[in-house]
Amino acid sequence: MSRSTVRAPNPEWTDPGCPTARALDLVGDRWSLLVIRDAMDGVRSFTEFQRCTGIARNILTDRLHKLIAHGLLAQRTAASGRRQEYVLTAAGRDLFPVILTLRQWGERHAFAPGEKHSTLVDEHGTRVPEIAPISADGTLLDTGNTHVQKNR
Amino acid sequence: MSRSTVRAPNPEWTDPGCPTARALDLVGDRWSLLVIRDAMDGVRSFTEFQRCTGIARNILTDRLHKLIAHGLLAQRTAASGRRQEYVLTAAGRDLFPVILTLRQWGERHAFAPGEKHSTLVDEHGTRVPEIAPISADGTLLDTGNTHVQKNR
Repeated sequence: MSRSTVRAPNPEWTDPGCPTARALDLVGDRWSLLVIRDAMDGVRSFTEFQRCTGIARNILTDRLHKLIAHGLLAQRTAASGRRQEYVLTAAGRDLFPVILTLRQWGERHAFAPGEKHSTLVDEHGTRVPEIAPISADGTLLDTGNTHVQKNR
Repeated sequence: MSRSTVRAPNPEWTDPGCPTARALDLVGDRWSLLVIRDAMDGVRSFTEFQRCTGIARNILTDRLHKLIAHGLLAQRTAASGRRQEYVLTAAGRDLFPVILTLRQWGERHAFAPGEKHSTLVDEHGTRVPEIAPISADGTLLDTGNTHVQKNR
């Protein structure tokens, strides 16, 4: 996938050599990720973000500003020419696998058997399969058979 | 993957029908996810979590308590019998795909070309391939060709 410009937080990264920590410095916040979830679902306006998330106005304003400052959302004038709307940048849209794995973990662990929840489907209405991380040779990966190598 | 018991937040879920929102109610916090990252890397003690994350003691205490309350971490007596240690539950370990997709997004977007960062490797020292969500028929999935269906 294409690289797109993301801007570092102020004042600095929590753990500069770790990509996970850098990602969390930029989007590691419940409300930011809910805003991104809703933007992926087609939400564009302040009012609709507020309605979907139930977030307080001042927190929503703060998170929209941060997401724009970090290069994950962009502001543009709506087709009507009347109001501003918020759209995901390429870097924001590329959070799709993060939102998807959060959703799938939630489906597995945060619902009782038989309890109803929304599902993510493709263009044919077929449910999106579970993400299963595999190695180059096809082995299922987890915390037990992977490890972090510093600064290669 | 096996279901394991996760306990709901107090007082209630932000958006009860959405698995992504439920996941974020439980782990949608930068420090919680950094603690989980470090636990996946083998960190077990309060002191070592503090050293790895640079987190303040009071925040670390709060996040460890929350992760235990939600069923993502468990506390046990170390083999030495002298100190308490923190280990991931099955539900905590199953956050591996979430941490991995955050890492891979960070690698793609939060580093300048050539800038050094840690990498995740398998048991042969081979870098873990990029997660690419695909549909049942093999189509690459993103925000453009998927959508959420409510409460099926």
